[in-house]
Amino acid sequence: MIELKFRIYLEDTDAGGIVYHANYLRFMERARTELLRAAGLEQSATFTEDVSFVVHTMKLQFHSPARLDDIVIVTADVSATRGASFVVAQEVRAESGSVHCSAEVSVACIRLSDQKPRRIPEQLLNSLKQGNERPQ
Amino acid sequence: MIELKFRIYLEDTDAGGIVYHANYLRFMERARTELLRAAGLEQSATFTEDVSFVVHTMKLQFHSPARLDDIVIVTADVSATRGASFVVAQEVRAESGSVHCSAEVSVACIRLSDQKPRRIPEQLLNSLKQGNERPQ
Amino acid sequence: MIELKFRIYLEDTDAGGIVYHANYLRFMERARTELLRAAGLEQSATFTEDVSFVVHTMKLQFHSPARLDDIVIVTADVSATRGASFVVAQEVRAESGSVHCSAEVSVACIRLSDQKPRRIPEQLLNSLKQGNERPQ
Amino acid sequence: MIELKFRIYLEDTDAGGIVYHANYLRFMERARTELLRAAGLEQSATFTEDVSFVVHTMKLQFHSPARLDDIVIVTADVSATRGASFVVAQEVRAESGSVHCSAEVSVACIRLSDQKPRRIPEQLLNSLKQGNERPQ
Repeated sequence: MIELKFRIYLEDTDAGGIVYHANYLRFMERARTELLRAAGLEQSATFTEDVSFVVHTMKLQFHSPARLDDIVIVTADVSATRGASFVVAQEVRAESGSVHCSAEVSVACIRLSDQKPRRIPEQLLNSLKQGNERPQ
Repeated sequence: MIELKFRIYLEDTDAGGIVYHANYLRFMERARTELLRAAGLEQSATFTEDVSFVVHTMKLQFHSPARLDDIVIVTADVSATRGASFVVAQEVRAESGSVHCSAEVSVACIRLSDQKPRRIPEQLLNSLKQGNERPQ
Repeated sequence: MIELKFRIYLEDTDAGGIVYHANYLRFMERARTELLRAAGLEQSATFTEDVSFVVHTMKLQFHSPARLDDIVIVTADVSATRGASFVVAQEVRAESGSVHCSAEVSVACIRLSDQKPRRIPEQLLNSLKQGNERPQ
Repeated sequence: MIELKFRIYLEDTDAGGIVYHANYLRFMERARTELLRAAGLEQSATFTEDVSFVVHTMKLQFHSPARLDDIVIVTADVSATRGASFVVAQEVRAESGSVHCSAEVSVACIRLSDQKPRRIPEQLLNSLKQGNERPQ
């Protein structure tokens, strides 16, 4: 389970005075990157080792908007792992706990060379399982 | 049904050599803006007339990625209307017809002043229905 | 001399209600890309042919801001060419002619493989000169 | 003098494998926001108190590019103050000290209501001077 905390800057907002909706995806990707890093993968390494991760599907719910100068917390929590993909539950929320945006993100492992699905490297898969999946 | 066609520029790509996934949401929002404009609404007017539209939920599927210099077509098609919201089916696809990203987007009508749900103005609602819904 | 015309969307604005200042650079890069394309270079080709162009210096002046729903015109005009670089004069302006942002952009030609300066390919250099430089 | 340190994420890069040039402006604006905050100004307050700051001119130099996963340091240092504007010297650099991008940014104080120049509030001006200008 990863938690990042950062501030909302002008770049993140739109003329409605709130965070532009697509930017929550940028925030969530930052947390997924740290999730993979914590599991042993440098993002830049994905481009040299013929393993890459791409978002396959996303279900997004937008709740109350975040605004300029807000501090937000972005979480990423592996909720399921399969051989060639994993699912991440994510939230962008205020320090008060109120949720700005929640998502279920399915991430597929591919070979960078031909963009075809491939198995997640064993060690990485184990790290994703251990560090993140809750015992039943 | 709205169709926009434009080119993928460097700003849209990432170090993976493909369109950064969150940018498909920017493209789709352009098409929804033109959909509302075609139905009689200037986007900027939403900020002065106490009516605004916010994305409520999104289901996204990422298929084959678009790349630098590609021409893409973005579509927006109203698939359902309710009193205070409507659903848009959207695609970003290549000229060849192959789909890069598809989405079902639920858009809620709110009062800008207090961010509370409100009914879609009647004339706009009718335009959204007429211009876009297919007869059964 | 290249001229692109497009609309300002929500993605381009910030909570100040105007175009976020860094986005003028995105607009200008679109026009420079079309300038190079008109001179015979596909942007994506730069990554396969070991020739690439990077912005070296930029002098920017921000005048009156562009706003949501505005139509803007972005221009790119080669003002000088050297062996391994060229200078582009650029503007983002309203249809009325009033200027939102103007820039002088120095673009360097590099080898992609080692990021070192290299001479602009002769044919491309000639095209940049002919198509764009004004006779004295 | 403000220093922010953060990581380069996929969102910041382009298909050239490096940080997209316009994104250095986003990074620099983050540091200027913290500079103003340190001097007593909340960015969001600028929209309610009829005082706002806009970038007037920028001189940018792009040196060696930053890449995915890099840690960068962004600085903002007031180099001059006038009644209605101030100048900030900024850098985006690697932890090793090598500079990715440097800039001289002139920031004007305006009334938000009519976008006209106005004097910087006295207390803020003093803070900018004291906290940031070096004695001669």
